[in-house]
Order: sequence, then C-alpha cells, then structure tokens
Amino acid sequence: MAYDTNMRFKFSIFAIGLQILLIVLFGIFVRYDTQDHATSHNATRDDEFVDLYPFFQDVHVMIFVGFGFLMTFLKRYGFSSVGINLLIAAFGLQWGTLMQGLWHLHGGKIEIGIKSMINADFSTATVLISFGAVLGKTSPLQMLIMAIFEITIFACNEHLVAFLGATDVGASMVIHAFGAYFGLAASAVLYRSGLKNGHEHEGSVYHSDLFAMIGTLFLWMFWPSFNSAIADHGANQEMAIINTYFSLAACVLTAYAFSSLVEHKGKFDMVHIQNATLAGGVAVGTCADMNIGPFGAMTIGFLAGIISTLGFKFLTPIFASKLRIQDTCGVHNLHGLPGIMGGIAGIVATAVGAKPNYSPVIQGAALAATFAVAVVGGVITGFILKLPFWGQPPDQNCYDDTIYWEVPLEEEEPENHYQGEHGKIRVDA
Amino acid sequence: MAYDTNMRFKFSIFAIGLQILLIVLFGIFVRYDTQDHATSHNATRDDEFVDLYPFFQDVHVMIFVGFGFLMTFLKRYGFSSVGINLLIAAFGLQWGTLMQGLWHLHGGKIEIGIKSMINADFSTATVLISFGAVLGKTSPLQMLIMAIFEITIFACNEHLVAFLGATDVGASMVIHAFGAYFGLAASAVLYRSGLKNGHEHEGSVYHSDLFAMIGTLFLWMFWPSFNSAIADHGANQEMAIINTYFSLAACVLTAYAFSSLVEHKGKFDMVHIQNATLAGGVAVGTCADMNIGPFGAMTIGFLAGIISTLGFKFLTPIFASKLRIQDTCGVHNLHGLPGIMGGIAGIVATAVGAKPNYSPVIQGAALAATFAVAVVGGVITGFILKLPFWGQPPDQNCYDDTIYWEVPLEEEEPENHYQGEHGKIRVDA
Amino acid sequence: MAYDTNMRFKFSIFAIGLQILLIVLFGIFVRYDTQDHATSHNATRDDEFVDLYPFFQDVHVMIFVGFGFLMTFLKRYGFSSVGINLLIAAFGLQWGTLMQGLWHLHGGKIEIGIKSMINADFSTATVLISFGAVLGKTSPLQMLIMAIFEITIFACNEHLVAFLGATDVGASMVIHAFGAYFGLAASAVLYRSGLKNGHEHEGSVYHSDLFAMIGTLFLWMFWPSFNSAIADHGANQEMAIINTYFSLAACVLTAYAFSSLVEHKGKFDMVHIQNATLAGGVAVGTCADMNIGPFGAMTIGFLAGIISTLGFKFLTPIFASKLRIQDTCGVHNLHGLPGIMGGIAGIVATAVGAKPNYSPVIQGAALAATFAVAVVGGVITGFILKLPFWGQPPDQNCYDDTIYWEVPLEEEEPENHYQGEHGKIRVDA
Repeated sequence: MAYDTNMRFKFSIFAIGLQILLIVLFGIFVRYDTQDHATSHNATRDDEFVDLYPFFQDVHVMIFVGFGFLMTFLKRYGFSSVGINLLIAAFGLQWGTLMQGLWHLHGGKIEIGIKSMINADFSTATVLISFGAVLGKTSPLQMLIMAIFEITIFACNEHLVAFLGATDVGASMVIHAFGAYFGLAASAVLYRSGLKNGHEHEGSVYHSDLFAMIGTLFLWMFWPSFNSAIADHGANQEMAIINTYFSLAACVLTAYAFSSLVEHKGKFDMVHIQNATLAGGVAVGTCADMNIGPFGAMTIGFLAGIISTLGFKFLTPIFASKLRIQDTCGVHNLHGLPGIMGGIAGIVATAVGAKPNYSPVIQGAALAATFAVAVVGGVITGFILKLPFWGQPPDQNCYDDTIYWEVPLEEEEPENHYQGEHGKIRVDA
Repeated sequence: MAYDTNMRFKFSIFAIGLQILLIVLFGIFVRYDTQDHATSHNATRDDEFVDLYPFFQDVHVMIFVGFGFLMTFLKRYGFSSVGINLLIAAFGLQWGTLMQGLWHLHGGKIEIGIKSMINADFSTATVLISFGAVLGKTSPLQMLIMAIFEITIFACNEHLVAFLGATDVGASMVIHAFGAYFGLAASAVLYRSGLKNGHEHEGSVYHSDLFAMIGTLFLWMFWPSFNSAIADHGANQEMAIINTYFSLAACVLTAYAFSSLVEHKGKFDMVHIQNATLAGGVAVGTCADMNIGPFGAMTIGFLAGIISTLGFKFLTPIFASKLRIQDTCGVHNLHGLPGIMGGIAGIVATAVGAKPNYSPVIQGAALAATFAVAVVGGVITGFILKLPFWGQPPDQNCYDDTIYWEVPLEEEEPENHYQGEHGKIRVDA
Repeated sequence: MAYDTNMRFKFSIFAIGLQILLIVLFGIFVRYDTQDHATSHNATRDDEFVDLYPFFQDVHVMIFVGFGFLMTFLKRYGFSSVGINLLIAAFGLQWGTLMQGLWHLHGGKIEIGIKSMINADFSTATVLISFGAVLGKTSPLQMLIMAIFEITIFACNEHLVAFLGATDVGASMVIHAFGAYFGLAASAVLYRSGLKNGHEHEGSVYHSDLFAMIGTLFLWMFWPSFNSAIADHGANQEMAIINTYFSLAACVLTAYAFSSLVEHKGKFDMVHIQNATLAGGVAVGTCADMNIGPFGAMTIGFLAGIISTLGFKFLTPIFASKLRIQDTCGVHNLHGLPGIMGGIAGIVATAVGAKPNYSPVIQGAALAATFAVAVVGGVITGFILKLPFWGQPPDQNCYDDTIYWEVPLEEEEPENHYQGEHGKIRVDA
C-alpha cells in the first residue's frame, strides 16, 4: 500500500466544507430551547438547566479528556490520540445535534437545551470508541468520514431502541456495545496483514502510560454522571449515581486481582488497569437507574472487571490472529463485552421487576438490534474507508504521529549529531 | 545584560511583605457577603451561591490548570509555566478582590460572595494572558510587579466599560483583548535583540506538547462556564452556554483545516491545535449571552479559528521581526485578534438588536477604550519591569527553568558520566 | 531482607476474597437512602442530592487525581503512585461506607445518599495520606491491609470526636493529622536502615515533577469543596468555601517566599511548591465554616505555608536521621503539622466565639484524642505490616515500579543494543 498521505488540500477543503454545511443546516433547523422564553422565564426549565449543567460538564470532560488521554498510551501517537479525538468530537457534537434532533422536531425545528447538549456529547462517544479499534491505522480524514456515518447510524439505532420501548439510561447497549462492534467490524474490513507481527511503535513508554491514566481517572470519576445525566430527576437519577459509584469500585478490585493473576510473577499490567477498571461503568449502564441495590451494582462491577481483564489477556490475541480483527485499544474488552453484559443485566433486572413497565423481551430485542445494526453499519463504513483516496497511512507509518503532525525534535541527547539526524528523519517520515 | 538573578532575599521579602499588606487590607475592608445573614438565612442568595459554585470551579480550573498547563509546551520551562502561573493567580485573586471591590463598596466594605470570587478569578486571567506574551523572559518578581499594575488598571478599565454602559459578558474585550495588548505592549518595551534569532530552548518536545494539551482541553471544555458565569440567570445564561459550546466546536474544524492548509505536506501543527481551537471561545465572549442563534455563534467560531491559525502562521513572525514584539505564546493570535473580533461581533450584534438596550456605538467606544488603556498600561508597566533590579534572566538563560528553580537531574541515560555532568551543568546554570 | 515479592496468588486471592466479602456485607446491610422514596419523591432531599453532587465530584477528583498524581513525583514510581492510589481508594470507599455506616444505622441498615458517598471518599483520604509516608516501601497487599485497619480506626475516632461534641468540618484533625501520624507511626515501625543513605530512585525527574503538579493543582482548586461539602447549607457552607479560597491563596505566597528564602541562590524547590501551597487548605479545615473572616483565613494560610515549607527543609531530614521515620512524601509537613495547626486554630476560634455552641476545651480534647489514636493505631498496623509474608520489596527495589508492574521498555535511544538490555533488565528487576 502506498497511498498519498499528503492531506494538505484534501483534508482542509473537506473540513471547511463540512463546517460550512453544518452552519447552513443549523441556520435552517436549529434554535434555542430558550427562544420562546427569552422574556418570560420558565423557572422549572431554568432550574433543570442549572441542575444538569454540572452533569453535562462531567460528560464533556469524559469525552475530551477521558477518551482523548486514555488513547495516549501509545509511545508515538499521543498527538493523534488527543488531537484527533478533539477533532472528531467537535465535529460529532454538531452532527449529532442534527441527527438526534431530526427525530424530535418541534414545529420543524431542532431545539437546543441542556439535554440535547448532553445527548450530542453522548453521540460522539460512539465514534471515539470505534476510534480506539482502528487507532493508529487511519487518517484524520477517514475519521471524519467514520464520524459522519457512525453518528447517523447511531441516531437511527438509538431511536429504534426507544421506539421499541427499551431502557438504556447509561447506554451500555446503544453507545458502548454499538461503538465497539461498529469499530471492530470496520477494523475487520480494514485488516492489515502487514501488521500481523506487530509494529515497533505499537506499545507504550513509561510516561505515555501515565498520560493514559489521566484519561482513565477522569472517565472513572465522572462515570456516575454519564450514567445518570439523562435519568429522571429524583430517585432514579440518584440510584444511577450510587449504582455506578459502587459498580466501578468493585470492578477496580477484580481488575487488579485478575491482572495480577494472569501476569508474569503476579505483576499488574497497565493495559488492564487503564481499561478494565472502567468496565464496571459500562456494564452497569443499562440498569443504572433501576432498583438493583448497591449489592446488585457491585456484583455487576465484580464480573465486569474479570471479563474485561480476561478479554485483554486471552481474546485480543485471538481476535488479531484468528478473526483478523486488529483492536488497537482493546475496545472489545472495555466496551464490547461489558456492553453486552450490561444489556444482559438489563434483561435480568427488568425480568425481576427492578424497573416497572419495562420488559425483558424488549430489552433483548434492543440488544440484538443494536448488535446487528452496529456490525452491518461498521462493515459498510469499513468498505467506504477502504477507498484509496482518504490518505490512510502505509503500514510502516502506522502508530506514528509524524505522518500527520509536525513533531518536534527530541529532547537534547548525549550525541547531538545523532539526535539531529534522528529528529529530521522523524519529521520527514 | 548581566543582572543579578539571585532572588533569595529580593523575592522572598517582597512576597511576604505583599501578603502581609493584603492581610491588613482584607482585615480593614473585606467581609463576607453572608455576614448579615449568619443567623437569618436568605434562601434566594444561598441558592445563587450553590447554583454558581460549579461555574466558579470550572473557571478556577481554567485559571490554574488551563492557563498553567497551556504554557508548559516549552521544553524546559514547565516548572515556571505552571508554577509562576499559580503564584500570580494566587496573588492576583486577592489583589483583584480589592481592586474590583473598591468600585462596589457596601457601607465602606467589600463584600465577598460567589460572584466576587468569580470576578477575582477573572481578573487574574488578564495577567496570565500577558504572561504568555513575555513567557520565558521575565523573573517571578517581575511577574508579581506586572500583576499588581495590570490588575489595578484592568479593574479601572472594567469599571469604565460598565460605566459607559457596554456589555461584555464573556470578556472578549476587557479580559482577552486587554490582557493580550497589555502584554504585547510590555513585551515590546522589553524587546531583547539577543533573542531575535531564536533560542535553543524556545520550542517544544514531544511530551511537553502533550502536557500543553491538558491546558488546552480544560480551557476548551469549561469555556462555556467562563462566558456564562456572570450572565443573568435564565435564558441569557443558557444562551451563553449554548453559544460558546457551538462556537468552540466550529472553531476546532477551521483551526485543523487551516493548520493543515498552511503547513508542510498538510500536517497539523501543535501550536495551532493548542491555541487556535480556543479562539472561538474568546471571539464569542462579548455576545455570548445575546440572541445570536447557534448559527451566529458557529459563524463567529468558524472565523475565529481561521484568523487565529493564520495569525500564528503569518503575523507572529512579522511581529517579532518588524514590530520587535516577541510574543512567546502567540497571545495576539489567541486573545488579541479574537478579542478584537469579539468586540466587533458585539457591535454588530447590538446593532441588529440581539441584546435590547445596548448600543453599538457604546460597544465600539468600550472596545477602543480598552485597547488604548491596555497599550498605555502595558507600555508603562513595561518600563517599570525594565528597571535593572528585578532579577530578570540574561538572554542565554531565557526559557530555562534552571535559573529560578531547583531542577532534578535527567533520567538515567546510557552514559552516566556524561549525563551527570550534563545534569550538574543544568542545575548550576 | 529477601521476601518473596511474587504476588500472583497472594494478592489476587486476597483482593477477590475481600471484594466478595464486601458484596455480601453490602447485600445484608446497605440500601439506598432513596429506597423509601422510590415512588413518593422527597423534593428537599432530592434538591440536597443534586446541590451536593458537584461538591462530591470535586472531592472525588481530589481523591483519585489529586492524591494519585501528587505522588507521581518519583522518577520510577508513577504507576504505583497513581495505580495503588486508585486501588486503595476504590476498596476504601466501600469499606468506609460500612465502617462509618455502622455508627449510623437506620433500622439495622446503612443508608446510602450523597453525604455518605462524600464521607466514604473522605475516609479513603486518611489511607492515601498514610500511603505518602510509606510510599515506595510497601507492597500493594500491605496497602490493602493498611486500608482495612486505618479506615476502621478512623471511623471509630471520627465517631469519638463527634461524640465529644467537637467540630471539624474540613477535617484538619480527623483526616489530615490522623492520616499523617498514623502513617508516620507505621513508617517508624517499618524503618529500613538500608535506605538511610538514600536510594537512587528516591527523587524526581523533570516530567515526573510536572505530573505531580496535576495532583497539586486539582487538590488546590477543589479544596474549598473538601472543606465545605458536609457543612450546613447556607452561610456556614459559604464561609467554608470563602475561607478556604483565601487561606490557600495566602499560603501560596508564603510557600514560594520561604522556598526561595531557604534554597540555594533563592531558587524555588518543586517539593515545596507541590506540597506547601496546599497547607493552607489543611490548616483552615477545622474552622473553615466559622466566622473567622477572610482576614482570619488568610492569616492561617500565611502561617501554614511557612510552617510547611520549613518542615520540608529542616524537619524531614531530622525525622529520617534522628527519629528513624522515613517520610517519603513529607506528609508530616503537608498534613501533620498543618493538621495540628488547624486543630489549634479551631481551639482559638471557638474560644473567641467564632462558632457558637462549641467549646475550646472539647476541641483540644478531640485533637489530643485524634493524635493518640492515630499513633497507637499506626504502631499496631505497622507491626502487622511487618509480618514477612505481604510481599514487601527488598531495599534495592524500593521506589521502583518494576517490582509490581509490567513496565514498558524505554523510549528508543541512540544505541539500541544498549537500550534493549537496559529495558530487559528493568522489566526483570
């Protein structure tokens, strides 16, 4: 593969055109939810806005710092991880506002309020999860294309799940499982045999693992906000916070325990700690606002930490070798399996009446539909991304920022003449 | 230039004296806004405090983590960036409380509540912006001196703008343009011909650019809080949040697009991504709480991202060579131009009636006054900072933490004997 | 000392067993505070939950990011600092929920609401502080053991202090002094003569000091939330926020001033900046919600910054050499002395009537009791930790992640063959 990776006009014209299109569409379709109330205040709605604003900001931090830094673990792909994460999330929240809003028009208009902003941020999470599956192997332009397709399909699937009458407050199914299987399907289509024996840059260094922990911790801490942000005010929202808090805590202990159990000499592996400690947040998502008790939440977290760690250790290598699915960040273990588990927990919880008026059959149908839509959508998008003009990197330049970024010379090293060349080589790579 | 950079007694005695002076002045002039209500609660005011506290904390994060880490991009100036940022912000919020409070006395006293705390944090932002213009070329003592003068002048100008009857809820003019042109004027006075051909430490390394992204992202995420924190509760505050959210999102796409357009082989430049993605927050500031529509906000962000990126690429070199203004962080491109643009947007928006009862003429007068006060204030302050006894660094020690900080030896490297010397040389520099 | 540091089954079985025990105990004893209200909403309680949730999240960030990253200053112990911090905090918040809840049963049940979550997070802070005293010298298993004992004893002491009728809203005594003296007592028992001449890894490198500043800043910014989270709604909570804000600001100036005063050539020392700038938050804790005036708060912060910096410079070396207490992070200077100072400030403040209905004698008794319980508890726990089967590291592997973590190879260096060996040696250490 020797594609043209010079993005100068391709990327810039596409991005500018896309943003102009968004502005035009916003001009036609979008207005403030507040617009009718500009003079006559609506106290209840205003209270909701202020009450939910901290939840919104927590979710915002998860999207931009959480997902962004979680992916900086690669030694030479930090600029792309945190930078392209910002790019696709900033595009995605605008596109998501439109795609989700089209299903909820008010007099032909999309109205923007605090809940639509939270949902717009949510919609970007699907692409950021899929980004993890293809991390290091795609161009920025490919990621914008993926965002367009994935958010569109996500919004349709989300509407379908709501239409069916299923509940998924923390989005185990419609965001986590969806994003994971969409990304894995796309990654399967984009399979690179040239990377099957690994790549020198596909790994971490000491400080890149610490940067990744910034992402892990902000995701971990604010996950209760993610799972409760759009729950009904009152007891449901409070249970969503409490359940997520305890599920995550339990998950940490099993993630550490199983990491130590499966690793050489009982050492912890940063990959597990960075990721599997979060599986409890994913897995408790669907039934977060249900009356499952702290006991139930902890049980879910307990199992999620185990499944996720074992997935990293045993499934990811099999996926790469047997299924020809290269999953850079292991999103299958953090979002895929725990997302499915969350869907199943929702089936069980509704079956035992933890949330009145919801049916386990419907929950199962929603889970199956989400899985199917994600895989089909991911395969189609994968084939579109395979077209040869998106500036994708050749195998040898995967996992390397220098192909799409101006990268500074290395810190001064003992033998300057060497380092100078080294630096220059990097930059021109 | 060979000034005495030993700060031992100079800095410590000055800082202690300053803090004692602050405590005495607070003892005389400052009391809680709550003091009258210590027993009889005022429910509405208490609600305002709790409602605005998350906004305050978001602004607080922007000031200390956002500005602090944004400036850590320099390879050997991270301690100073984040450390002196903390120092001047901690001093500045106390001084700002006094300087702003003197214009709003209650029975001869300054009353402290949540809004005065937000405003005190705001007042420090002006110095932190100016700090970016002179970064690497000043001593900690000089920065305290600058903070004293700049915050004093800022508070007067802010009062003038309010007195004129102009509106500037997100402070495009009174903070961003003010801080930028104040700093640029000071930097012009402090021009160092010895640095006109650059300096080996005036650049980033891989990890320092990632640290800077922590600053960028926290500024980006919490900017809606900055622009809405002191807006009127209700529709205005909500519009300020929504407008800033969408302006920033649009700005990201044009910042990436133009970075790719102007750089070698279409690569992104971290300088643009770290800074120009934020210009949409600055530029939408003045009219954030106005009824400009998401469409209007996005248009402002769209243009701000372009102007800022082009400024970094083309204006900064001209400023350094032709105008003899060395702008280390490019604050002209992030705060100056977008701040002016924000002022102009405010003129246009008031002209078309986006905020009733405000006049475009007054807005224009406020912008012009702010620019003039900033430049004059910056020039005067620059001359004061030029006095030879503030411990300023010689040219060869600019952009280097070792002159004001105990810096640890480098990480162990292959040839220890070399590294040892290297380390010692650094520390004694 | 040549203990078996292979943690494979020891750690994993212990952690899994502990988590199963927690789940069982939660199943028996714990329910939502919301449970009775699942259908009939209680508007006031719901409002409290939403109002305090941002305070909870701020405290949460302090616990996981603040404490975690503050300890990443060591050059080769970042994984453990941030990782074991997460482990013991995640365990601790579950255990703390039980230990604190047992003193406040409702019909034989522990009820979970926003305040119990805040208190659970608080309870973990004690262990995280003690962790700082023994950092680099203990195994993950030892830290879980310490957490079990320390949180149990903390909950008893906290109850004792409340039973006596003392006030300690920001927990200068019951968290900071308690955690510090508990940890110091344990560290004394665990004294390692092999480390008395230092250790090559007991120090920082440039970037590790920047990571630590992430911790410092999030602690600094959110400390007002820590000190006010469980204060009475209204004037007391507002005073707690305001007092902490100004105490911390004043503390920064004296920390910088005294750091410069006591260091070579007047340079700042990162150890002081990372830690002593926070002493104002600790020292104002007990009287945070009292009517001491911003003036009083700033005076406390002023003194705390001085005491803490001088403690780092002069006391820590004496502790290590004369008292045989090795205090890795200097918790005595950040939490011990300022905690005692906070207790004394509380005595003075209640004596002058800054909080009606509280007695200085009782405050003094609470301080003395806390100190005694901490020291006795720490000594006992220290002897338990000294048992030879917890996998503690030999002296030469202290302060080194490689003994408990899979550590990646170093970044590519000029001479690859060397680096390869270097890397392998590290990993097998």
